Amino acid sequence: MTAGSHDLVIRGATLVTCDPEGTVLADAAVAIRGEKIDWIGPTALAPASARRVIEARDRILMPGLVNLHCHAADSLFRGLVEDLPLEPWLQTVWKAERAILTEETCELGARLGFAELLLSGVTTVMDMFWHPEATVRAAKALGIRVATGGIFFDFPGMDGHGAERRRADAEAFAAAHAGDPTVFVGTLPHGTYTVGPAGLADAFAVAEAAGGFFSTHAAETRAEQDTVTGRYGRSVIRHLGALGLLSPRTVLAHCVHVDAEEIAAMAASGTTVAHNPLSNLKLASGFAPVPAMLEAGVNVALGTDGAISGNDIDLWLAMRLAATLHKAVTGDATAVSPRQALAMATTAGARALGASDRIGSIEVGKQADLVLVATDRVHAAPLFDPVAHLVFAAGRADVTDVLVAGRPVVEAGRLLTADVPALLADVHALKARTLASIGRT
Amino acid sequence: MTAGSHDLVIRGATLVTCDPEGTVLADAAVAIRGEKIDWIGPTALAPASARRVIEARDRILMPGLVNLHCHAADSLFRGLVEDLPLEPWLQTVWKAERAILTEETCELGARLGFAELLLSGVTTVMDMFWHPEATVRAAKALGIRVATGGIFFDFPGMDGHGAERRRADAEAFAAAHAGDPTVFVGTLPHGTYTVGPAGLADAFAVAEAAGGFFSTHAAETRAEQDTVTGRYGRSVIRHLGALGLLSPRTVLAHCVHVDAEEIAAMAASGTTVAHNPLSNLKLASGFAPVPAMLEAGVNVALGTDGAISGNDIDLWLAMRLAATLHKAVTGDATAVSPRQALAMATTAGARALGASDRIGSIEVGKQADLVLVATDRVHAAPLFDPVAHLVFAAGRADVTDVLVAGRPVVEAGRLLTADVPALLADVHALKARTLASIGRT
Ligand SMILES: [Zn+2]
Ligand SMILES: [Zn+2]
Repeated sequence: MTAGSHDLVIRGATLVTCDPEGTVLADAAVAIRGEKIDWIGPTALAPASARRVIEARDRILMPGLVNLHCHAADSLFRGLVEDLPLEPWLQTVWKAERAILTEETCELGARLGFAELLLSGVTTVMDMFWHPEATVRAAKALGIRVATGGIFFDFPGMDGHGAERRRADAEAFAAAHAGDPTVFVGTLPHGTYTVGPAGLADAFAVAEAAGGFFSTHAAETRAEQDTVTGRYGRSVIRHLGALGLLSPRTVLAHCVHVDAEEIAAMAASGTTVAHNPLSNLKLASGFAPVPAMLEAGVNVALGTDGAISGNDIDLWLAMRLAATLHKAVTGDATAVSPRQALAMATTAGARALGASDRIGSIEVGKQADLVLVATDRVHAAPLFDPVAHLVFAAGRADVTDVLVAGRPVVEAGRLLTADVPALLADVHALKARTLASIGRT
Repeated sequence: MTAGSHDLVIRGATLVTCDPEGTVLADAAVAIRGEKIDWIGPTALAPASARRVIEARDRILMPGLVNLHCHAADSLFRGLVEDLPLEPWLQTVWKAERAILTEETCELGARLGFAELLLSGVTTVMDMFWHPEATVRAAKALGIRVATGGIFFDFPGMDGHGAERRRADAEAFAAAHAGDPTVFVGTLPHGTYTVGPAGLADAFAVAEAAGGFFSTHAAETRAEQDTVTGRYGRSVIRHLGALGLLSPRTVLAHCVHVDAEEIAAMAASGTTVAHNPLSNLKLASGFAPVPAMLEAGVNVALGTDGAISGNDIDLWLAMRLAATLHKAVTGDATAVSPRQALAMATTAGARALGASDRIGSIEVGKQADLVLVATDRVHAAPLFDPVAHLVFAAGRADVTDVLVAGRPVVEAGRLLTADVPALLADVHALKARTLASIGRT
């Protein structure tokens, strides 16, 4: 115990640390000073004095979740277009996006998405969207850590910017947010079928100069593979590899259609895969070979993708699917253990951001990004194994409290950092215009 | 509008009726007299006087869900054994069941499971477990409709009964509950690999005499197919067909491993399939060919299976998986529409029970089995299509109120029919003994 009083002590919790040993402690306490975790131990030995005490009996205390692939502002279009094959579906969604998206509505959509994520215990999100400055404003307003940066796209974007200014935009973003502890700076080229080698190289160079991440959609669909193979004579991952873009700073969203050689290349290079199981199901993309990736040593993290392919952005569901889907695909009931699925939702994302020393687990000296999960509920009883419970039975509605850097952002299931009814009213005000944009009423 | 005052009027709701036309009404009201729905129409025209009024603005009113395959009492063993291949997993679970299950603990487990189901808006459940009288007591105490009856099993059961008395047990059960409006009577042979042709015929005869259902596990795993094919020279579904057991009263749980000819036989005979997507994933059973079944005209309903293969019993998740999983399996993003998935969770189950005239949809004259779903939540906005919302974004935690036969059983997210803390205390009291039964502490 360190001297002096603490800002917060959480007592009596079942502590799921996600530390390298996978430590789980019954009746444990965590003491927080400022932004950081200062002390961890048995409740009986916890610091006696603190400015605030949370009694967490019947709750699990776990690290904040890391959602490594999202387009939060797409929540504005949640459920707008359903029951269409991929191509006409995408054309219709794009029509609505072109009509509705401005820097202002991007910020509104990001606030809607981030509100949903915080309420579910996500404390860090990698978000790819137009107007990343709007994304950052929304993230700061709501108190979520965000990993974002300049989009790269070889065609005119929804932000009205052309390909020629993407590098400058990305550099300006990186400069503006260098050193900000709540913003992970990087670059986000859309994909290898929409960004050519020059744009990808620019994006990687900007990420490298900023010490940040480089993230793109990769190997999501067969059609994408066919396009890229037709254009470059090699598959998406081989193309990225040949361009020198597989690296520890690389985050590839999806990787559904990858073979053993590509998996080995991702593992050897330290590339991270952001697995988005629900999106892959709903868009009929297929099943990413996650067990093979884990076996090969790829860093596999989890994402929700956007609400247009969701329709919610629920990392708990992603975790549950990651732990069950691949059992059926491989016929092996031990494929992807609960511990592995939980790591995918926490430490793997932290590692992808080069932030394993700061977030992803509950350890002394790390940031106090913490989530309390109620276990006094019918679907939790009897609770034999806290990790199995979190992965196989708990859900976002069990989250009661969320802290980011020691700051409470959710308390008793309520978001403290936004006026939710006002936010929802602003979102609903766009509905009529959104429907009209695709010829509906 | 009929004369006289109503017991309850629900006003201002978005009404998802699940009637044959798939009617959805904005700002609608439903008036209830006694157990039944007496009036449906615009809120502006709703009966003015009622003993109770629920203002349901910002909520969807939908029919109670029907869970067509469950083992509620297995909730006592939720999360007990994880991370094992199927065979040693099953052996360990059975060890615990043999040590713990008595008629009393079966009733306790059923109460735990039914509490979870009611809180999630399930108003009718088909439950297969030892001591069906205990299941009925639990169902009546909690206020859920239950479809259950005599188990058939060729080996000594967990209830201590041998195969020789199964028929008499089943007949006694059927006689005891004939005409009970809250109990659907039937018979539940465990499976074609655990019950021989004589037991299956007995079970079917008892079901037929009682005018009830006949339900068994069928074609869940490859190992089961191999066993049955080895023993009888035909696959599970062909075996059932040859024995004359495919019929409108037949409910087959799983049907993962079925071919086109078997699907055609199920369709032609009016057999119902209870699809349990989460169980099939977690136990690595595979993917039931649901789009092909629907295409062929099979009545496909949904089930949760038990919490040992779940680990919760969440029919919302089953619905979401039914509407997304098969898109990825078939590569067709339009496979299983939201409307089809919702029908699987409501009307298909009612049809399987021969109760389409009483439950499964909101229509005048039907039983008032109703669920209110909150939509004033972040993950619901903006709400373009109520059915897509229910299937792709809503969840059990959005359920605020549940009525069964006009009787409120859940109000504002609280179960009215059980003392939940006391129930959980009783469940927790079994934990140490359950762990000890498999040599753990
Ligand atoms: Zn994406
Ligand atoms: Zn079953």
